[in-house]
Amino acid sequence: MREIAVINGPNLNLLGVREPEVYGTESLQDINDKMSHLADELGVSLRFRQSNAEHELVEYIHQCYADQVSGIVINPAAFTHTSVALRDALLATEIPFIEVHLSNIHARESFRSQSWLSDVAIGTITGMGSKGYLMALRYWQD
Amino acid sequence: MREIAVINGPNLNLLGVREPEVYGTESLQDINDKMSHLADELGVSLRFRQSNAEHELVEYIHQCYADQVSGIVINPAAFTHTSVALRDALLATEIPFIEVHLSNIHARESFRSQSWLSDVAIGTITGMGSKGYLMALRYWQD
Amino acid sequence: MREIAVINGPNLNLLGVREPEVYGTESLQDINDKMSHLADELGVSLRFRQSNAEHELVEYIHQCYADQVSGIVINPAAFTHTSVALRDALLATEIPFIEVHLSNIHARESFRSQSWLSDVAIGTITGMGSKGYLMALRYWQD
Amino acid sequence: MREIAVINGPNLNLLGVREPEVYGTESLQDINDKMSHLADELGVSLRFRQSNAEHELVEYIHQCYADQVSGIVINPAAFTHTSVALRDALLATEIPFIEVHLSNIHARESFRSQSWLSDVAIGTITGMGSKGYLMALRYWQD
Amino acid sequence: MREIAVINGPNLNLLGVREPEVYGTESLQDINDKMSHLADELGVSLRFRQSNAEHELVEYIHQCYADQVSGIVINPAAFTHTSVALRDALLATEIPFIEVHLSNIHARESFRSQSWLSDVAIGTITGMGSKGYLMALRYWQD
Amino acid sequence: MREIAVINGPNLNLLGVREPEVYGTESLQDINDKMSHLADELGVSLRFRQSNAEHELVEYIHQCYADQVSGIVINPAAFTHTSVALRDALLATEIPFIEVHLSNIHARESFRSQSWLSDVAIGTITGMGSKGYLMALRYWQD
Amino acid sequence: MREIAVINGPNLNLLGVREPEVYGTESLQDINDKMSHLADELGVSLRFRQSNAEHELVEYIHQCYADQVSGIVINPAAFTHTSVALRDALLATEIPFIEVHLSNIHARESFRSQSWLSDVAIGTITGMGSKGYLMALRYWQD
Amino acid sequence: MREIAVINGPNLNLLGVREPEVYGTESLQDINDKMSHLADELGVSLRFRQSNAEHELVEYIHQCYADQVSGIVINPAAFTHTSVALRDALLATEIPFIEVHLSNIHARESFRSQSWLSDVAIGTITGMGSKGYLMALRYWQD
Amino acid sequence: MREIAVINGPNLNLLGVREPEVYGTESLQDINDKMSHLADELGVSLRFRQSNAEHELVEYIHQCYADQVSGIVINPAAFTHTSVALRDALLATEIPFIEVHLSNIHARESFRSQSWLSDVAIGTITGMGSKGYLMALRYWQD
Amino acid sequence: MREIAVINGPNLNLLGVREPEVYGTESLQDINDKMSHLADELGVSLRFRQSNAEHELVEYIHQCYADQVSGIVINPAAFTHTSVALRDALLATEIPFIEVHLSNIHARESFRSQSWLSDVAIGTITGMGSKGYLMALRYWQD
Amino acid sequence: MREIAVINGPNLNLLGVREPEVYGTESLQDINDKMSHLADELGVSLRFRQSNAEHELVEYIHQCYADQVSGIVINPAAFTHTSVALRDALLATEIPFIEVHLSNIHARESFRSQSWLSDVAIGTITGMGSKGYLMALRYWQD
Amino acid sequence: MREIAVINGPNLNLLGVREPEVYGTESLQDINDKMSHLADELGVSLRFRQSNAEHELVEYIHQCYADQVSGIVINPAAFTHTSVALRDALLATEIPFIEVHLSNIHARESFRSQSWLSDVAIGTITGMGSKGYLMALRYWQD
Repeated sequence: MREIAVINGPNLNLLGVREPEVYGTESLQDINDKMSHLADELGVSLRFRQSNAEHELVEYIHQCYADQVSGIVINPAAFTHTSVALRDALLATEIPFIEVHLSNIHARESFRSQSWLSDVAIGTITGMGSKGYLMALRYWQD
Repeated sequence: MREIAVINGPNLNLLGVREPEVYGTESLQDINDKMSHLADELGVSLRFRQSNAEHELVEYIHQCYADQVSGIVINPAAFTHTSVALRDALLATEIPFIEVHLSNIHARESFRSQSWLSDVAIGTITGMGSKGYLMALRYWQD
Repeated sequence: MREIAVINGPNLNLLGVREPEVYGTESLQDINDKMSHLADELGVSLRFRQSNAEHELVEYIHQCYADQVSGIVINPAAFTHTSVALRDALLATEIPFIEVHLSNIHARESFRSQSWLSDVAIGTITGMGSKGYLMALRYWQD
Repeated sequence: MREIAVINGPNLNLLGVREPEVYGTESLQDINDKMSHLADELGVSLRFRQSNAEHELVEYIHQCYADQVSGIVINPAAFTHTSVALRDALLATEIPFIEVHLSNIHARESFRSQSWLSDVAIGTITGMGSKGYLMALRYWQD
Repeated sequence: MREIAVINGPNLNLLGVREPEVYGTESLQDINDKMSHLADELGVSLRFRQSNAEHELVEYIHQCYADQVSGIVINPAAFTHTSVALRDALLATEIPFIEVHLSNIHARESFRSQSWLSDVAIGTITGMGSKGYLMALRYWQD
Repeated sequence: MREIAVINGPNLNLLGVREPEVYGTESLQDINDKMSHLADELGVSLRFRQSNAEHELVEYIHQCYADQVSGIVINPAAFTHTSVALRDALLATEIPFIEVHLSNIHARESFRSQSWLSDVAIGTITGMGSKGYLMALRYWQD
Repeated sequence: MREIAVINGPNLNLLGVREPEVYGTESLQDINDKMSHLADELGVSLRFRQSNAEHELVEYIHQCYADQVSGIVINPAAFTHTSVALRDALLATEIPFIEVHLSNIHARESFRSQSWLSDVAIGTITGMGSKGYLMALRYWQD
Repeated sequence: MREIAVINGPNLNLLGVREPEVYGTESLQDINDKMSHLADELGVSLRFRQSNAEHELVEYIHQCYADQVSGIVINPAAFTHTSVALRDALLATEIPFIEVHLSNIHARESFRSQSWLSDVAIGTITGMGSKGYLMALRYWQD
Repeated sequence: MREIAVINGPNLNLLGVREPEVYGTESLQDINDKMSHLADELGVSLRFRQSNAEHELVEYIHQCYADQVSGIVINPAAFTHTSVALRDALLATEIPFIEVHLSNIHARESFRSQSWLSDVAIGTITGMGSKGYLMALRYWQD
Repeated sequence: MREIAVINGPNLNLLGVREPEVYGTESLQDINDKMSHLADELGVSLRFRQSNAEHELVEYIHQCYADQVSGIVINPAAFTHTSVALRDALLATEIPFIEVHLSNIHARESFRSQSWLSDVAIGTITGMGSKGYLMALRYWQD
Repeated sequence: MREIAVINGPNLNLLGVREPEVYGTESLQDINDKMSHLADELGVSLRFRQSNAEHELVEYIHQCYADQVSGIVINPAAFTHTSVALRDALLATEIPFIEVHLSNIHARESFRSQSWLSDVAIGTITGMGSKGYLMALRYWQD
Repeated sequence: MREIAVINGPNLNLLGVREPEVYGTESLQDINDKMSHLADELGVSLRFRQSNAEHELVEYIHQCYADQVSGIVINPAAFTHTSVALRDALLATEIPFIEVHLSNIHARESFRSQSWLSDVAIGTITGMGSKGYLMALRYWQD
């Protein structure tokens, strides 16, 4: 059974609290529960990780590599725009990944359109709210 | 029953023929058939339009407005980067739309990362191949 | 009697419908009627054309040249920012023209301040709503 | 009866003398006389001011505010490109204004296309020679 | 016998009329006649197409692909600077093509030096007037 | 007893009137009174100057130099972004100065973040409303 | 009693050691002591945090939010220029904050003038040395 | 006898006082005296004007035009970089002028290399100290 | 009989050796021989020069001027992007010239699209391999 | 005996695993062993540190300062392009350091040519693979 | 007796021939003769050098250094914009020099305003024709 | 026995004389002697060339190619920033080379960070003084 890692970056632990007009009212746990439900349906297993620390995400990706994870769904949040280390971890381990953003990053401050990850991702999903995570998971649907 | 318009821009009539290493081997009809299948499942109806002419797409969007279409899934192809008229048609009619690209536009020539539509869309899906259209459709799944 | 062509670009067929807070509530026909009324007063004749297709406007300008039209009042709408073909048609035929915009293009998205036509026009009128067309017509008032 | 202020910036006292191939042969007094004539017709009153000093124009706008002037027609000339103080005076007093330029500023040195005032104006009129002032005045025509 | 398509973009139907100091006095038919004469000499056959409509050129290239045309000589005129759809049509069909401009585009407005086609062409010929088309044809001379 | 000059630039005579949502409801006299009160407490003397004219501020700085003023608190307002002459006056006289802005200039139009004075100032205080002047004065508190 | 958090970013633990010609000779403890003294006078309570780790500051801001802290005085040091995560934490929790820099960042390397925080702060204080912290605290003085 | 106007811009009244390591120790009167001496030798007459006010210099140039002055030697100081009004006054009156700077403006802050006047001057002299004025005067030596 | 100079810049002596996948397998002598053959046919005479030294090419152009050469075919190679001296030699002598590049410079490193010569040339030919020289020669064909 | 710290940034713990075509097949331990061997020969002692966390490297540099380390050889990896905190730690502690990169950063993505450290380093060594570390160490060879 | 070197760059051997509307009708020898005449008057000796080769000018500057020349008047012509080697020769030898241009480089192509030498020169003289060389020489007049 | 060419660019013949605070006090001969000593130790032979002329270096590289030299250590000095011809010579001959700079080019004028050679080199060494040449040589150490 293929395993997919679901990785969330800084401040996403505040989901449901933080700027609900931008990010919606669901908590991260709510979203993860929905993903687990869909994963069962699709026949894949999931692992979850949220961290506010760049190095923890880098090392978690190293661990995914050691554990032969099949793919990653990542919402890098603020690290989208600032972390070459995440880019390098993903390049080095060559785990296929999809970049997800809850909000439409093209409709906010201009810097949010620049990503260190997009050009080395499988692809990107933006602006779909929590549905974006579920869409990404369906990439591994046969 | 809600109706969704599926709009494809220039050169996408060549799908399955054109640069298969970039765009895959399915024809546009193949993709539309898959979408119809999913639409049935989701309980929405679809209408399809491909054109190589900017004005035909602009006027098709005007027609969608007159027909009270609920949403649009659009792959604007080359017009992504050149058509303010499409942007204005979508702004004027205020039909919610999702922008889809088959390939990961961030991994190709740099100009392909610039879109006249993204900041006024609900959101964007890139790099998922034909699955991207299906993902977009699920946005209207309850 | 001098003849002036009044040319409107893409999406302006939606006037009165489209974004009334930006473009006002008059239809294009309303505006054309006002222009005809003023034209009678000024002793010039008018011809009108709206199209969503760049090539139709290019060829209409070619026709104006063949018909020895004296001047053009043009609201190029979206083509303001994307059509070198319109610029070239106007350069080639050397018909004097005035560029009109209903809204103040300098107060909107920054790209709307860039025009392919302004530097080869007689001049420009922006932000005056439908009055801008009437002002432009008065350029041919003795 | 509504009052409109007509404000002219630096070097415009030379009109009729200065670069006639660019600015025409009428003096500023000639233009003001034409405006007065049209104002009578339109039923508005006018006040006129030309100055080469930025602070005098700033303070004149303050005075217009104190006197409850209804609108301003301003040709800021060189201050178009250099005076944030004028911009701030117009922003602060919130008197609606139209920016007029005798020549087509888009057809001259590139810096002349940049204005500190345009985005906070009602709109702009360029390239119409002295007719531009009269057109602007008609904005207050019912 | 190899077939070469000769494609001309918008406003080139005005050749011989339009800005003769820039484009010369020959009509497009004059140039095509010269090309036919040279083609006979070189043992290739030609097909010709001029259009002011982007979509017609895109679809003509699709047709050339279906007809197994060996090469294209194209003067994209204004579309040089604005048409990603033409670029994509040429990339998709992979027909080798040469980009020709009558005038020296490097000696005119700076935007004329930017082409959506040059980097995917065999090469470019500029500034040679109608001789440029004939030179391009000789590329297929053995 | 050390003397500090408090200098205010163009349009600040409108304080309390102008854009109260940006600049607050206190008049300049109100602010000066508060400063005088604090100055007494700190044991420094103050002199005040507001002008809409660049040259008057330049010459006032020359006068401060002649009078051996110990420091300057300056809100250059619009001149922040346009006056090299003020910069040169402050560089020439070498009077230590603090640049104060009532509003947060980084949260407004982007040009307001650029200052001709900041890099030659002791430092800057922005966004604190009238409290900013008082904070600046405390720099001379022992 | 209102509580204010005083947050210091990376390398500020070296204060008094690091580049004294730029940052002065006081240690961070010295500054905190002065702040505590002033806080008593102003009737607010303080909490202090210095960290070299971005995620610790992000999570500390989350904690301040949970503890209903009234305001933040933050010297983000190097994170000023690199941390979108800090920006997002401050945006998400909506705690009003003032950005303080010991040195005049406009007089140093040009990158130091760019801040991820300034446009979402109440305001900024730069170049005042340790007095800047005290000035910031007075913002909460009635 | 030809008359040459010698015009000096803002802060140059401080010459001999202001930043002597940049501008030297001579006063403006000292320089003017040297120029008068050379003028006698060359058989031209001189008139002198220094002002810190842009409008005074603009109007002085208007006066020079009325008085049929043959040429201008101008050190615009700070106005070099900020005054389009001076540029326009010199363009309008078409009096030939030479732009002089005491210091080498290319060796100072980068903004000092940009001039609103240089491209419409006869030429420029920089970095020669007070000798630059004398060199400029020799332009009118037969 | 008209004489045409054929000038080749640095490293072109390596032709046939250097990067054959970019520049082909013919030596420079091979190309010159083909040109001589065509020149005979066209009734023009040729002179040839290759040099790796900028000054030798500059002085060779001076010599062509003294010898009343009718035109130049030049492949400036690396000097395309670095030699203002060549540009000035060609501007000064006013010998009409065509710029030729063997490879498609638009399909290589971006700096190769910038030329010091193109805007003062008759025109340019790129990407045609050695055929480009022959095409250029035909410019002088009647 | 002088002590040199050898510091490696994020993802370098993957050396020998990660992108071997870019970084080679040696592990970090292999490289460190070679360095220890050379250090013995040169008579210096070494200390080693790799971390994926920016704050750990910042604090390690603080520790090196406390321990009076003589020099640093640092491969900052991804932090090269994103860490002002590292720059500030090195500036503050003033320990001389050499920046090493295994690959030729100038031959990869363009952002890899920008370093926050290079201008404050002794110097840089790039593209030499693991030999670069040894070369750097020889800087301390007498 | 002080010796001054007068150095002229590429194509200046054509003076009097080349673009007389830009550079005048005097030959370089004519100018040198005038300079010699003035040098006698000023009591300095001159040496002259013109070359089209960068390395010859670099080595001539080395020779001037060896010969203890007191100063240099240099018109670098095209090398102004392309030669870092000349800059480095002048920086290395530290001979004070003045940069002269016959034409007003600010009124020509924009690249002519950029100089590799100006910021390390004593100063610059432009647009004065051959008089500029004489003015430069007077810098060494007591 | 492998042969390595050591190539030095313009002005490096002045080493030991020129700007010793930047380049040190050793002459080029001193450095070459040290290199010869190390070469003996490493078992490689060396050839040396310094020139101030770009074409001499280009042709020397051609000669190295003919002589089957194994590698090049090059300090291109000023040509680093200006010579595409050197880049092309090294690309054409495909001799592996290392770019060396005595000073830290990242700590000097910003243009010194741009190199025409770095992206096609094996790698670069900067800021190590004459030790950099020796380090480069060790690249060929087994």
